[in-house]
Amino acid sequence: MSGFGAAGGLAIDPDFCAGLFARLMSFSRDEPGVTRAAYGEGEEQAHALMRATGLSLGLSPDTDAAGNLFLTMPGRDPALAPWMVGSHVDTVPHGGNFDGAAGVIGALAAVEALRRAGLVPVRPVTVAVFRAEESVWFPASYVGSRAAFGLLPPETLDLPRTDSGRSLRAHMAALGLHPDAVARGERLLDPTRIHAFVEMHIEQGPALEEAGIPVGFVTAISGSFRYRKAACFGRYGHSGAVARSERSDAVFALADLITGLDALWGRLEQEGCPATITLGEVGTDPVQHAFAKIPGEVRFCLDVRSTEPALLDRIEAALAQRVAEIEAARGVRFALGERTGSTPARMSSALIEALSGHARRLAIPFRTMASGAGHDTATLAGQGVPSTMIFIRNQNGSHNPHEAMRIEDLCAAATLVAHLVASE
Amino acid sequence: MSGFGAAGGLAIDPDFCAGLFARLMSFSRDEPGVTRAAYGEGEEQAHALMRATGLSLGLSPDTDAAGNLFLTMPGRDPALAPWMVGSHVDTVPHGGNFDGAAGVIGALAAVEALRRAGLVPVRPVTVAVFRAEESVWFPASYVGSRAAFGLLPPETLDLPRTDSGRSLRAHMAALGLHPDAVARGERLLDPTRIHAFVEMHIEQGPALEEAGIPVGFVTAISGSFRYRKAACFGRYGHSGAVARSERSDAVFALADLITGLDALWGRLEQEGCPATITLGEVGTDPVQHAFAKIPGEVRFCLDVRSTEPALLDRIEAALAQRVAEIEAARGVRFALGERTGSTPARMSSALIEALSGHARRLAIPFRTMASGAGHDTATLAGQGVPSTMIFIRNQNGSHNPHEAMRIEDLCAAATLVAHLVASE
Repeated sequence: MSGFGAAGGLAIDPDFCAGLFARLMSFSRDEPGVTRAAYGEGEEQAHALMRATGLSLGLSPDTDAAGNLFLTMPGRDPALAPWMVGSHVDTVPHGGNFDGAAGVIGALAAVEALRRAGLVPVRPVTVAVFRAEESVWFPASYVGSRAAFGLLPPETLDLPRTDSGRSLRAHMAALGLHPDAVARGERLLDPTRIHAFVEMHIEQGPALEEAGIPVGFVTAISGSFRYRKAACFGRYGHSGAVARSERSDAVFALADLITGLDALWGRLEQEGCPATITLGEVGTDPVQHAFAKIPGEVRFCLDVRSTEPALLDRIEAALAQRVAEIEAARGVRFALGERTGSTPARMSSALIEALSGHARRLAIPFRTMASGAGHDTATLAGQGVPSTMIFIRNQNGSHNPHEAMRIEDLCAAATLVAHLVASE
Repeated sequence: MSGFGAAGGLAIDPDFCAGLFARLMSFSRDEPGVTRAAYGEGEEQAHALMRATGLSLGLSPDTDAAGNLFLTMPGRDPALAPWMVGSHVDTVPHGGNFDGAAGVIGALAAVEALRRAGLVPVRPVTVAVFRAEESVWFPASYVGSRAAFGLLPPETLDLPRTDSGRSLRAHMAALGLHPDAVARGERLLDPTRIHAFVEMHIEQGPALEEAGIPVGFVTAISGSFRYRKAACFGRYGHSGAVARSERSDAVFALADLITGLDALWGRLEQEGCPATITLGEVGTDPVQHAFAKIPGEVRFCLDVRSTEPALLDRIEAALAQRVAEIEAARGVRFALGERTGSTPARMSSALIEALSGHARRLAIPFRTMASGAGHDTATLAGQGVPSTMIFIRNQNGSHNPHEAMRIEDLCAAATLVAHLVASE
């Protein structure tokens, strides 16, 4: 292979990785891009593929009540808690083939390299394939990994999937899984019995690509607050017949809110405060809107993220204030709807140090960075499992049909993982 | 009857009006509101109702190639050019029962009052029922009234109706009308053979209601420029993983454009410059947008109106400049799409003076005002026909299900029309 880290004696097989990506693509193409719905057909087929691949590598499979899959390579000392390496295989609708899957394929490739090199680590190595990481399907974060630790609130099982309208419970049951056991908090994983967790994942922004660096070690994962079903209500009226001062234009009011949030964000950026603010979906009401009508209603969603809990609080306070100001000034009413959120997570500096040492020895360029996006790793870190992520350089961002990633960069990350689990 | 103008000897029958509104409502209800699509079933039934009503009043019917209906009461001197009084009977989707229909029903009620009073005006009086005034159906202004004067550009016949996707030509043909004759510019109406035109219409804003005045005489009708299929294109990306400076967020860019236009509009308002700016439809792409994606695309429409041609030019220049600035600052691209527009129209001051005289004599409170909305009257004025409109006080605006209008206020307007056509 070309690329970084091939000299370490543990050579990751790029064809092994590329073959698995091609098979994933073969059953989940949904132009533009790929779709593997959480607890849907695409995710199910991906789990079957990873399971079959694990079996072919001699790993022992285990599936919990929520359908999370664990494939374990025995270690030399069966008394020791295992390493865990993994990610998820669902995607957003019309997303890319790499977000999630790269972390599972990279983990399997690391195990394959260890096996091919005849190396058996001291500790067992478990490849984890979590369910339902993409919260676009069920409006909740980390459904699969939280269920794996018995942490999923039972009411989450009643959430409807955004495409089918059927509940998480119904989708689990349809796959022969055990939602009642999930509701009771039954679990396979004991956080005190996991040595450490590492998740490889494509970087979802352009930082590594722009810096020309193949991998990044993640120091913290953003938390968030989110309003998925927000709306602004004004008053419909004729577009030519109502003076500016007499209008309650829902779209102008929302524009006012957005530019206010953008100005705040600009100030935070100058202060060096890390955050992101996104309204991914915005729309007037297709039934009532018209070209010649002042819009009386606009719906939107709002996603605010930061690695700093205090910063989330500051932005949320500013949001509330701006909403109140705009309501008073424009005679509109905002209904933000249900709030969801997640807590920022700190990564293990010991793990990052260990990975950095391997990277230096293997001459793999790296940097450390925060993750603006949420990941299952946040669940494990929240349970006290020493955790980190390895971001892989990626072109064109993620959650879109144009996701790209060089296999050699995934191989660099998997090489680091193989060395990490072989060294301790 | 109660209300204004009953003392003038020409008493408008409110039950005649209310009965026609109820019959219109009976076949066009489409909750919320009413729908009478241009060249659709609702408009067709409304034309049949107006024709039957005209016949029952002894009026002579005439229909042109485009399906415009003219119902004429003979005058004492057949050599004189007729008065024309009318409006349209189509509505926006889920609109109200009064926009348009009030002007036709009021005209028929004026004729009915003349007839009941045994008065035959010197000039013939033609009640005009124009087609397709609501440009939401076919993206063009004044389709019916322009066709009535042979002025409809033939390519307009190829426009698809926004609901059916079928062309204006096909919809005309399906009703047994003659699109080829329309394309050739054949016409029934000769503008030099119309004495004057008056259109009664509900006010589409709140000014009369707030001033407590039942009628307004229109001094000018706004022109417009319009982009019905505009879009802003940015770049999709993960909502948590792309820094503010790296984003090309289409929704933030559009918000920037809207707040810029709003600020300009505020300055114009302070300068006393009449204009309106509306984005009636806004939406991210339902196929590609997602909660956790930076929006890479947002579609919108833009409707700018003013009675002053120079003001339209000024706003359009500012729009172009703001678009260029935002494109440069945010790495997005605006595609405004096809531009349509109409020219502002001046109303006849002689007609307004004559109406004002009748109103004073009849003790009907009135004011003069501009029309921000476009109306068929603009077509007639553009052809040199002395024209004006009588706005009728209206609650809750127009183009929405909550349109309201007191029948007594329509009767006041129709009383003025009856006196006007009887006096000359």
